[in-house]
Amino acid sequence: MADEPRMRASAEFDLIARIRERLGERLPDRTHRVGIGDDAAVTVPAGATATSVDALVDGVHFRSEWCPPAAAGHKAMATALSDLAAMGAEPGEAYLWLGRPPQISDAECLELCDGAAAVCEAAGAALLGGDLTAAPVLSLCATVVGHAPTSESFVGRAGASPGDVVCVTGALGGAAAGLLLLERPDLGIGVEPSLCERARRRQLRPEPATAAGRLLAREGASAMIDLSDGLGADAAQLAAASGVGIEIELQRVPADPAVEPLARAAGREAFELLASGGEDYELLCTLPSARLAGARRALGELGLSLSEIGSADRGTEVRLSLPCGRLLPADGHDHFDR
Amino acid sequence: MADEPRMRASAEFDLIARIRERLGERLPDRTHRVGIGDDAAVTVPAGATATSVDALVDGVHFRSEWCPPAAAGHKAMATALSDLAAMGAEPGEAYLWLGRPPQISDAECLELCDGAAAVCEAAGAALLGGDLTAAPVLSLCATVVGHAPTSESFVGRAGASPGDVVCVTGALGGAAAGLLLLERPDLGIGVEPSLCERARRRQLRPEPATAAGRLLAREGASAMIDLSDGLGADAAQLAAASGVGIEIELQRVPADPAVEPLARAAGREAFELLASGGEDYELLCTLPSARLAGARRALGELGLSLSEIGSADRGTEVRLSLPCGRLLPADGHDHFDR
Repeated sequence: MADEPRMRASAEFDLIARIRERLGERLPDRTHRVGIGDDAAVTVPAGATATSVDALVDGVHFRSEWCPPAAAGHKAMATALSDLAAMGAEPGEAYLWLGRPPQISDAECLELCDGAAAVCEAAGAALLGGDLTAAPVLSLCATVVGHAPTSESFVGRAGASPGDVVCVTGALGGAAAGLLLLERPDLGIGVEPSLCERARRRQLRPEPATAAGRLLAREGASAMIDLSDGLGADAAQLAAASGVGIEIELQRVPADPAVEPLARAAGREAFELLASGGEDYELLCTLPSARLAGARRALGELGLSLSEIGSADRGTEVRLSLPCGRLLPADGHDHFDR
Repeated sequence: MADEPRMRASAEFDLIARIRERLGERLPDRTHRVGIGDDAAVTVPAGATATSVDALVDGVHFRSEWCPPAAAGHKAMATALSDLAAMGAEPGEAYLWLGRPPQISDAECLELCDGAAAVCEAAGAALLGGDLTAAPVLSLCATVVGHAPTSESFVGRAGASPGDVVCVTGALGGAAAGLLLLERPDLGIGVEPSLCERARRRQLRPEPATAAGRLLAREGASAMIDLSDGLGADAAQLAAASGVGIEIELQRVPADPAVEPLARAAGREAFELLASGGEDYELLCTLPSARLAGARRALGELGLSLSEIGSADRGTEVRLSLPCGRLLPADGHDHFDR
């Protein structure tokens, strides 16, 4: 449209130049040749690539009043990198579209890019380019490219077999507890401040499980998915792609320490947050049972945990069971009354 | 946020499955392994890759009341593929984020994906995946990956030398004329209907100059950029990246046949649309003068035109000159009063 090029010529080109300069300073000296500012970024990949796209929109996936610009940049990039973790990929390149509403200042755009670049850097990825345009609300779209020696090195969702054990990295529910707290800060009264801070951080600054994903791929994971939509919903995705049933015993799922006190303060059951909270960006995987010990040992050497929480079977359903014997529906959350 | 995963579990997963099925049918049998639906799309690139990201937001880059969903999908993908054309890349893979406002139906989402897939198909690219989320207005972000044997095979913006000729493919101003007509349909009264249709099409359904870009790379183009922001603004980008000045004689720039009648109806000068209209997605390139004849011949064999419109010099300025001797400012449009 007529106004966009004109806006670009003045303000946007300047800001893009500043972003380019700022990000250029932190680029690893690797495959890139052109980087931000040309028509496209150039790389020379060796082997196979895995590419994922993830968007984050103010009012849909986060609320800008809770989420400083650097955290929005962090989260957009972390959720995309989490998809690469779930493939067992080595993060390579990243690209970010920043859709900027009028109230976001140039300085905030730079903070946002810094947040995105920092999470890339931690994962070993280079933020090579993207796009910057106007948008009615803060909108981010991250594209990330990961690498592996061959396409068979990646772990998809479709490889689980009946009899495989079902495992999860880390602890779940922290991001959902953080969301409860952001929605109702009064829930934090009487709860250990460090647990509240931890929960908020799990919601606003998720960390992609890059190292765990690569180790699990090496240690024989048969299928893997990252936990973005919730344990039940994501297990259902993996089960459907693999053509297996899955039973998960919720009492075996490690809970983030913030879950119990914040769920109680909110009058919710902790298991709901574990089963349907989502956004923890831990990994759910299946393994032949003979590989479980080796995988736990490999993750343990890096201080990472892997918990067996259930098994795959010849069925088609996903069941989440509670200690009382009650079974939750396959999607884990559709029928909870929040 | 809490509501997003729940929405996903029901409506979005279903729609994603339908998109996957529909797009899967038109995928070329090539490098992809996983495709839409896993955590990431897997490819095995040979040689070097060029990656570009382009976003299109309702109310910023187009208006949904003018632009049917299939055209929005087409335009988002075409503008990204145009960046690859400007690198001289062979289009390979494409990814699309669709941010969907409540009023866009499932059927319209599918039409939009069809529009995106069709322009990919025409360019030889495979639409392998993406993301679908809610958004306040229709928002699209396309990521495209192109290929070449080595990174040196790509043509950047920075290679122009003083003395190079400056050339443009095709004819300019048609997209700007189409925009005038979409803003004021009454301008079309008395103008040949086929010219009006042509102008609207240039605005709503731009075609990436994929074949021209690859030929120009092979025929020795020293620098290249696609014309998205306007001839003056884009020439300024190329000149700045290359460290040269550029003089363009506007009377040598071929005008789309719709420009003259629609500019006249709007009380505008045709040269304004040529200099600053933007969105034509033709290619601006520089060539050593000894390579010009060969490049024109190569494009001519495919029925494509290449016009010499100026030259690069030792200066730092971009000047657009009119036959009367008047010079327009470097950015070509900042000072027009629309």
